Amino acid sequence: MNVIDAIRNRRSIRKFRDANIEDEKVNIILDAGRWAPSGMNNQPWQFIVVRSRETIDKIAQCTIYSDILRSANLLIAVFLDKDEMYDRTKDVMAIGACIQNMLLAAHSLELGAVWLGEILKEKEKVNQILDAPESLELMAVLAIGCPVERPTSTRKALDEIAHRGRYSRK
Amino acid sequence: MNVIDAIRNRRSIRKFRDANIEDEKVNIILDAGRWAPSGMNNQPWQFIVVRSRETIDKIAQCTIYSDILRSANLLIAVFLDKDEMYDRTKDVMAIGACIQNMLLAAHSLELGAVWLGEILKEKEKVNQILDAPESLELMAVLAIGCPVERPTSTRKALDEIAHRGRYSRK
Repeated sequence: MNVIDAIRNRRSIRKFRDANIEDEKVNIILDAGRWAPSGMNNQPWQFIVVRSRETIDKIAQCTIYSDILRSANLLIAVFLDKDEMYDRTKDVMAIGACIQNMLLAAHSLELGAVWLGEILKEKEKVNQILDAPESLELMAVLAIGCPVERPTSTRKALDEIAHRGRYSRK
Repeated sequence: MNVIDAIRNRRSIRKFRDANIEDEKVNIILDAGRWAPSGMNNQPWQFIVVRSRETIDKIAQCTIYSDILRSANLLIAVFLDKDEMYDRTKDVMAIGACIQNMLLAAHSLELGAVWLGEILKEKEKVNQILDAPESLELMAVLAIGCPVERPTSTRKALDEIAHRGRYSRK
């Protein structure tokens, strides 16, 4: 799948059908995350892939979006590894780049995915469920599956967000 | 260009040859940034495209990487729009996703780009040069041009960063 098309057509998918996703595909997604850029190439990310229905159910209880998690085929919990941090703002941006790579890779494999952030309000509980140490700070949970919807979305017009030469108030 | 290949083969490019980059290509890059995901779809980003040699020279004085900026064909300054923020960590991740989209788009257009973060230590000065209001916080400067190098890079092995089922200390 073409890069620009993937960027333009990727949507957040919140409804999945029951299906198996091969480990090979999961590894392509993780590998895409791994190749994100980071400041000083510090790669401050760690991933936990969750396939067990029991564990998914426990994590689902940490968010108001439990139905999405329960219908997903697998989750990828994405953490900031605080032992690798050098600058919180830059490291958090690197995590965003890493997540976007994984979402684009999932889309290019014809899988659907959604980036869940609301669950961060229960991040300590998620760490506990996954045996993750305190040095790992939960940044997002990606719910991944075979899509059964093709939602649309919108963005601000380019001239609302892009300025030429210097800032020009709209 | 294929998504997975772009993700795997994109490198930070720091040496550029003198060449013109058409506005059409710049708009494809900005548009890729625009289509990044963000929490509540708040799209907390603003971009300033800088082509003037005089302005590039002024910005170059704000970083130890001035040679890279001076050899670039254009810069894109990426800001967090604090008026659109709802959660700093999530908004900063969204900016990272947005930057990654722009880097992948540049790579797919056979342009080179580098994400510069060191310049953030002089972010107020950059805002001043670009007439950007205090509500915009500089997150990165992307230097973009026609590449004259093909550097290599490395990443940690997948089994150092990816865990299955639950966290497993290495």
